[in-house]
Amino acid sequence: MRIVVLTGGIGGARFLVGVRAHARRIGAEVTAVVNVGDDVRMHGLQICPDLDSVMYTLGGAADPERGWGRVGETWVVKEELAKYGAEPSWFGLGDKDTATHLVRTTMLTAGYPLSQVTAALCERWQPGVTMLPATDDRLETHVVADIEGERKAIHFQEWWVRYRGAVPTHRFVFVGAETAKPAPGVVEAIAAADVVLLAPSNPVVSVAPILAVPELKEAVANGPAPVIGVSPIINGSPVRGMADRCLGTLGVEVSAAGVGALYGARSGGGVLDGWLVDTTDDKTDIPGVRVKAAPLWMKNEDLTAAMVASALDLAGV
Amino acid sequence: MRIVVLTGGIGGARFLVGVRAHARRIGAEVTAVVNVGDDVRMHGLQICPDLDSVMYTLGGAADPERGWGRVGETWVVKEELAKYGAEPSWFGLGDKDTATHLVRTTMLTAGYPLSQVTAALCERWQPGVTMLPATDDRLETHVVADIEGERKAIHFQEWWVRYRGAVPTHRFVFVGAETAKPAPGVVEAIAAADVVLLAPSNPVVSVAPILAVPELKEAVANGPAPVIGVSPIINGSPVRGMADRCLGTLGVEVSAAGVGALYGARSGGGVLDGWLVDTTDDKTDIPGVRVKAAPLWMKNEDLTAAMVASALDLAGV
Repeated sequence: MRIVVLTGGIGGARFLVGVRAHARRIGAEVTAVVNVGDDVRMHGLQICPDLDSVMYTLGGAADPERGWGRVGETWVVKEELAKYGAEPSWFGLGDKDTATHLVRTTMLTAGYPLSQVTAALCERWQPGVTMLPATDDRLETHVVADIEGERKAIHFQEWWVRYRGAVPTHRFVFVGAETAKPAPGVVEAIAAADVVLLAPSNPVVSVAPILAVPELKEAVANGPAPVIGVSPIINGSPVRGMADRCLGTLGVEVSAAGVGALYGARSGGGVLDGWLVDTTDDKTDIPGVRVKAAPLWMKNEDLTAAMVASALDLAGV
Repeated sequence: MRIVVLTGGIGGARFLVGVRAHARRIGAEVTAVVNVGDDVRMHGLQICPDLDSVMYTLGGAADPERGWGRVGETWVVKEELAKYGAEPSWFGLGDKDTATHLVRTTMLTAGYPLSQVTAALCERWQPGVTMLPATDDRLETHVVADIEGERKAIHFQEWWVRYRGAVPTHRFVFVGAETAKPAPGVVEAIAAADVVLLAPSNPVVSVAPILAVPELKEAVANGPAPVIGVSPIINGSPVRGMADRCLGTLGVEVSAAGVGALYGARSGGGVLDGWLVDTTDDKTDIPGVRVKAAPLWMKNEDLTAAMVASALDLAGV
């Protein structure tokens, strides 16, 4: 069996741990198509937060308490940059992380596409799944927001990390998405998949930027594999992160039903065949979509693997 | 009074501490024209060992025991790069240093010339002297040497750090020197100087690459200020570093006389008016050059400042 997962960073990485565990049991291959909208160049370093979260988590090197970055991280480079007055100073640039970014940036500068760079980094981390960036092209999520009374378009990282999303926010723009091509292997993986899963990542700024790549969306929406989304909202609250702020900006209800309707039924121009919600949300109804309830708290690998089994069951595979 | 010092890194930095101390006493201004031949790009970072040694030393942040880099340095980035298998792994890239290189590389990438980048970095370090790179253009010292039986041209850093200069060595090449222009302010500083000092740096790979910039050599050799060299050889041995290996490659005797003759008298196409040697080398004779002996061990700031006073005395200023 071939499983493709469209995913963001932290929550998606945790979900992928369960996907990998279940896939090992049933002998399935997993391809993770990872959001690059969060990617940003800072201090000359190309930083890919979601790719790194997935890579570190699956590689057993993520910090489980902080939720992002490396376990045992140190912060000398960041402190020194601040002493030079180098901006941005609000970004959490760890020393171990810096080495990852140096290797990545050096390879990108030498002309390697991000997908090949990611494969090279994964030689160290052995994530046990094939990790593909959604695109090798520039695709950045920018946020139109009011900053100190002035309407500005800022990078998603600035909105998220610097302002914690707590500024009047008008919309999200996926810069470059219209002309971006799916990274090599992405469309092929989706076409060959037995099931496509949408991780319980932020629908607005993690999954949407992936689906904003036209050929990628086309491959998912018109592909042969059933598409099963896993709700990132449990009983009216996001499992983690700031999905509520993002959904609020779009005027979407912060509920399993709201997010399910945002993704939409495949038959109605959306992408979903099935929508897996938490047992607390078992009344959810999305027209044209098979809805199933299962416990969705990813408390450990086994519970997460059971979620994945439920999703595959919903897909009928 | 205006003092210009042509200098390399570690030894030159120590000399400059004495120059600065003496200059403060007599109310003089100091401009250091610093070698860039050691500069190298590694892991995407533009590294300027001599500029950094001078900046850190005069800024009070150099490691006095190791002789290079920052006091209290840590090595997380270097260890992580090695775990990725990223080459070169033999270069001592500290975490604090990495921040300096990130700031520099970001500014260079944004289009600022090295001289302006250096000035920006010095806003933090307040070295108390004007620091100018010899040139803003690419000028790299390469070394033609036999590596595992094969004749190769390798970067000076590889020859020095990786091989400790202990390979059969044929010559040094200052790549880019012929077309390099002096950095803004260098020729002006030399023209306005009351005295030009050659620090007791390595004559072959620290001072020679500076003088390999044609207009800079011209400004020194034909300028109004007396030029006083300070011998880096005391009683037949280099004060520090590997000047002996470098001189041997050129067939130059490792002695105060040998180095003095290498620089040569201004009247004979060289640059020297005066040559300050150690008291153990008081028999040194360089045709056309005034030779004076003084204690040249730079054991502390006061002794080094006394050396500088002797050099100015020799210059007659």
